[in-house]
Amino acid sequence: MRVSLDPKELPDKWYNIIPDLDFQLPPVMSPAGFPLGYTDLKQLSPGKIIEQELDRKRREISIPPEVREIYLDWRPTPLFRASELEKALGTPARIFYKYEGSSIGGGHEANTAVAQAYYAARDGARSVVTATGNGEWGASLAVACNFHKIKCRVYMVRSNYQDSLYARGIMEILGAEVIPSPGEHTRTGKKVLAEDPESPGSLGIALSEAFEYAYSQEDAKFSWGTVMNHVLLHQTIIGREARLQMRKADAFPDIIIGAVGGGSGFGGLAFPFYPDRKRIRMIAVETASAPSLTRGRYTYDRVDVGGLSVLLKMYTLGAGYVPPGIRAGGMRYHGISPIVSALYREKQIEAVTCKQKEAFEAAITFARAEGRVPSPESAYAIKAVIDEALACKQKNERKNILFILASNGNLEIEVFTDFLDGHVPDFSFRQDQSEAALRDLPAVEAG
Amino acid sequence: MRVSLDPKELPDKWYNIIPDLDFQLPPVMSPAGFPLGYTDLKQLSPGKIIEQELDRKRREISIPPEVREIYLDWRPTPLFRASELEKALGTPARIFYKYEGSSIGGGHEANTAVAQAYYAARDGARSVVTATGNGEWGASLAVACNFHKIKCRVYMVRSNYQDSLYARGIMEILGAEVIPSPGEHTRTGKKVLAEDPESPGSLGIALSEAFEYAYSQEDAKFSWGTVMNHVLLHQTIIGREARLQMRKADAFPDIIIGAVGGGSGFGGLAFPFYPDRKRIRMIAVETASAPSLTRGRYTYDRVDVGGLSVLLKMYTLGAGYVPPGIRAGGMRYHGISPIVSALYREKQIEAVTCKQKEAFEAAITFARAEGRVPSPESAYAIKAVIDEALACKQKNERKNILFILASNGNLEIEVFTDFLDGHVPDFSFRQDQSEAALRDLPAVEAG
Repeated sequence: MRVSLDPKELPDKWYNIIPDLDFQLPPVMSPAGFPLGYTDLKQLSPGKIIEQELDRKRREISIPPEVREIYLDWRPTPLFRASELEKALGTPARIFYKYEGSSIGGGHEANTAVAQAYYAARDGARSVVTATGNGEWGASLAVACNFHKIKCRVYMVRSNYQDSLYARGIMEILGAEVIPSPGEHTRTGKKVLAEDPESPGSLGIALSEAFEYAYSQEDAKFSWGTVMNHVLLHQTIIGREARLQMRKADAFPDIIIGAVGGGSGFGGLAFPFYPDRKRIRMIAVETASAPSLTRGRYTYDRVDVGGLSVLLKMYTLGAGYVPPGIRAGGMRYHGISPIVSALYREKQIEAVTCKQKEAFEAAITFARAEGRVPSPESAYAIKAVIDEALACKQKNERKNILFILASNGNLEIEVFTDFLDGHVPDFSFRQDQSEAALRDLPAVEAG
Repeated sequence: MRVSLDPKELPDKWYNIIPDLDFQLPPVMSPAGFPLGYTDLKQLSPGKIIEQELDRKRREISIPPEVREIYLDWRPTPLFRASELEKALGTPARIFYKYEGSSIGGGHEANTAVAQAYYAARDGARSVVTATGNGEWGASLAVACNFHKIKCRVYMVRSNYQDSLYARGIMEILGAEVIPSPGEHTRTGKKVLAEDPESPGSLGIALSEAFEYAYSQEDAKFSWGTVMNHVLLHQTIIGREARLQMRKADAFPDIIIGAVGGGSGFGGLAFPFYPDRKRIRMIAVETASAPSLTRGRYTYDRVDVGGLSVLLKMYTLGAGYVPPGIRAGGMRYHGISPIVSALYREKQIEAVTCKQKEAFEAAITFARAEGRVPSPESAYAIKAVIDEALACKQKNERKNILFILASNGNLEIEVFTDFLDGHVPDFSFRQDQSEAALRDLPAVEAG
């Protein structure tokens, strides 16, 4: 069953959760370790983005008409009741999912991509640069840049550049310049390659390379795919729509579930329900191979290996932690959104971990029931959903479970065929490596 | 700009063009060469499908509530105005496209798949069998079968089975049984392999194998992906919605364009506009490598190499014609829908051909402007659209061009990356081979 919204019902404001938090959110820090100011980010980011990043007062921030017009290309997105999955599980629970997989880029990343590209173009930038792992974020940004007639430059983790040919292909079809990272064009890249000429790269390295490029160019801006406050702000369009749709379905969510890599999909769905948090369990699902929330340390850490950009107070496994090669590239990042981290610290949300194989098993169950193949990241959310639905079955509880299916699996179908062929192992968390990485934390003078 | 319809506006009837035709449509023939009766198809098809195939009286046929309920999962589909493409071309024409790429299978094939699987399940079938080339049709049918809790068995052209790993992967993820064709399990397969152990297969061979299987099983039904009247009937949901949407956009189409393989996407969009045909140019676009309409013969021919099923009066290149290895698998079929064929014969629609490279060039232009990567088949439609839009520019005419973007390109991204890498050549029409194939036509006693 699909619950639709009329285009007229598309929200015209993003929701800024920060003023509603009943605790103090630690500030973002500059690379030098001081509370971040407007000018610290000026070279990397458009002015409006910096304002949004730092805004701690306005609960609602207007979506520019130009961005709203593009949102209407695929938004409001549908909310589905997963009736066939419910039947397959024999659960009395009602399962709903907000589906972002029909966006122009195939996932929720498009929500912030079109906003960031718009602000960059308005500030006179001629190109936008970013870093990407498996390429979903890069593909969304490539589309967004075309809409605003600016160039798109993507540093793609080298192992993904070699393996994720589909995602790389889409970016190239869309005209983006895709550069394998590490490479010889940046200081970071040179340094990494000097130590290990065969380095497969990591998102932390690719980010440093992208920052270097953005700093070196007059007319380029950097664009963030997740983690930062303004990215999560843009993603709240998801939850605002979902609230309207759940009301239409006459079902208030008892449980909200989302997979977390950087946290923007989960936050986008959950934050607009924050005012009702006492009636809702909110569950962030992370991979057992990179369990930032449940096994990481809550501290200031770098967002990239080079420490070229901001420092964030977050649950982190250490910027130098290299997680095992799980197939959900978006979940291999060492840290997690400062807001999501703080909510977990304050025990206002829960976190669970889940292993690769059980996640993909759940994804197959879902795909066969509902006809949609999820992305490997969303597979983790589905595993947690099935667990909760089966718990409801055991207790005969008719709860409403709402989750985010953040992107479709079209870019990474081979992940699931490899899984069906038995070629996808489980990986453990590399605790020793994380502890080593956490020995190298930045010095920070907290405000 | 997106023109949406409310779920309440989803049409509740398919449109049967046959009673409206101002000429006599030649009958479908049995394999033995006599006008087809209900019992001839009984073993292959569900009863309701045969009724629909043969119905020449009712202009409208009700969509069963159970099918309509599934349609609502992704329908009504959006109609987009391609404003960015218009700007890129500098044309005064207005370009609209009906987008079927967000269906559960990724293309328009889902419209008939869910109907056929429903009727098969209602008739007590426990499995549905079909043949597929690049796999889009098979993927849609696999989803549909899951919805109705019946098995799906797909004979996939061997060259595609080996190359189109994504499409095959999706079918397998969805639980369908995918069998490379030709294979040793059928008489047709054995015969082909005896002559050529390395045979790459063809849709005509795969169809014969699927027919054989369906005939051999008590509880299996065959499902048609295109060509047949009932398939085109189901696809008219596309054009019925598009009529409502064009009215909302306050634009009546002057030109309607669709790529034709079997003809079901083009027919699905165009047929509901047939009552207004004198005000509309309708253009079917075929590949220069398999130009059934423009270079084929209008005669009764087999649908499969073995001649195991019906004979159709259509434009055909000969059932034995093996077109060159163009990358739009759906356009390599030797024949074309009898209704589309008859409309062309009566000069009520036009046909143009277009080469592979110019089609893919057009697809890249479209993707960069609009943010959606089309399927290789739809690329052909886009090339014709761009030609018409540029003609409007030259004559300074503000025409409304409507086309069908029948499926997204997600299953076949590598086609376009190969193209960008210069690995996609043009192929000519193999006229000698077609003439040879046409020497082996079935004997038919026309009613």
